[in-house]
Amino acid sequence: MILVTNDDGIVAPGIKAMIEVAAAFDEVLVVAPDSPQSGQGHAITILDPLRLRKVDIMSGVTAYECSGTPADCVKLAKNILDPDKKIRLCISGINHGSNASINIIYSGTMSAAMEASLEGTPSIGFSLMDYKFDADFSGAKMVASQIIAQMLSQTKLPATLLNVNIPALPASEIKGIKVCRQGRGIWVEDYKVGIDPRGETYYWLSGKFESYEDPNDMTSDISALAMGYASVVPSHHDLTQYDVIKDLHFLENKLL
Amino acid sequence: MILVTNDDGIVAPGIKAMIEVAAAFDEVLVVAPDSPQSGQGHAITILDPLRLRKVDIMSGVTAYECSGTPADCVKLAKNILDPDKKIRLCISGINHGSNASINIIYSGTMSAAMEASLEGTPSIGFSLMDYKFDADFSGAKMVASQIIAQMLSQTKLPATLLNVNIPALPASEIKGIKVCRQGRGIWVEDYKVGIDPRGETYYWLSGKFESYEDPNDMTSDISALAMGYASVVPSHHDLTQYDVIKDLHFLENKLL
Repeated sequence: MILVTNDDGIVAPGIKAMIEVAAAFDEVLVVAPDSPQSGQGHAITILDPLRLRKVDIMSGVTAYECSGTPADCVKLAKNILDPDKKIRLCISGINHGSNASINIIYSGTMSAAMEASLEGTPSIGFSLMDYKFDADFSGAKMVASQIIAQMLSQTKLPATLLNVNIPALPASEIKGIKVCRQGRGIWVEDYKVGIDPRGETYYWLSGKFESYEDPNDMTSDISALAMGYASVVPSHHDLTQYDVIKDLHFLENKLL
Repeated sequence: MILVTNDDGIVAPGIKAMIEVAAAFDEVLVVAPDSPQSGQGHAITILDPLRLRKVDIMSGVTAYECSGTPADCVKLAKNILDPDKKIRLCISGINHGSNASINIIYSGTMSAAMEASLEGTPSIGFSLMDYKFDADFSGAKMVASQIIAQMLSQTKLPATLLNVNIPALPASEIKGIKVCRQGRGIWVEDYKVGIDPRGETYYWLSGKFESYEDPNDMTSDISALAMGYASVVPSHHDLTQYDVIKDLHFLENKLL
């Protein structure tokens, strides 16, 4: 069985595209948020109870909407909806918008995928670099089908969490697939400041992505995408910065 | 200036302890959520406007409560409240509860710290391994003071994001400070299933942490904490799993 989830919510066109891809490979279980959850990062719901409601979104597919976050959807799918442990792959998306570079940190799509992988289920997040609701998912579906087929054909997986981004190009213009590292860059904020109808000041997040990469260095996802390739970044949940551990031993001085 | 934030909210005793530590070193700016945000991970608020309200929480300290997430607090502090770029360090906490091992992924405390660090501000998250509201923060304050003093005394910082966890012990019983890697472990869920007053089924997250570490391997934060040490893990926002990139080139086969 393949678990499908996303962060744009159960009615987003991107999850319909994802389900269509998954259904060609195996039985599909869909558990997705009942409302858009973009930017939710790895949020989980601790203080409130959660709901699951069975919904009819595609013939032959079992689907639930969930009142929680993308990571909650995965936890509930695995713990409540899959008692026989049939889920062998989790796919998340297809996200409306990029999750390349630093976007992975803020991404509900990728946190759902990471939640599955850290509990031992191989997982892939797919994102199309087009934020529009009515984006053309045909190129993304082609890339997703190919990657899922190749991962399912491996007897031993070298990685259990992949962050796949697909350029907003017609399928025929996507140059291929590149395995990359997470590119360096940040969002430079530009808050829109206004006065609400009650006279109170508000701040509304806006900003522009700034790449720190050399566009000719094809080892980063940012550069591969700019050249028209789909990018695959093997990712994980160990945030340790190993190379500086040795430089921090001065903190162990016994002043306590 | 030192920016202080947290995820337990502006009235949590832990942030009061954090402010007291910070105020011994420099001018302090506090921006913290107006309600508890535990488990918010790296969520940011995209779809809604945010509010900042000046509050009086400690004599001589400028403080704001924010309607957003911990990461939102840091973005607003840096972009709206610090036009002269005076913030030289961000400290987040003191969290009520552990952020060691996999907890970093779900942690609002650590996501606030990471948000500051990825925008170039050195940052430290502090967490006390005691979830109680009325926990004893004296040992945690001692550890935090020592680490902040040592980091501020460096001319060139070897790391810009530290995840510090402190055992729930009286100050005199904390054995020292260990620089560690993120320990391996996961939360094993045990959802509480019930029927709400309207007759609908709910699922409420509960679970138990399961360590994958050898307790005698003192290189992990889990083990150091179990031995009575405070743990310091240098962390970062590059989630690439570099060692498997070379094993994934089969995905680049030109099937497209």
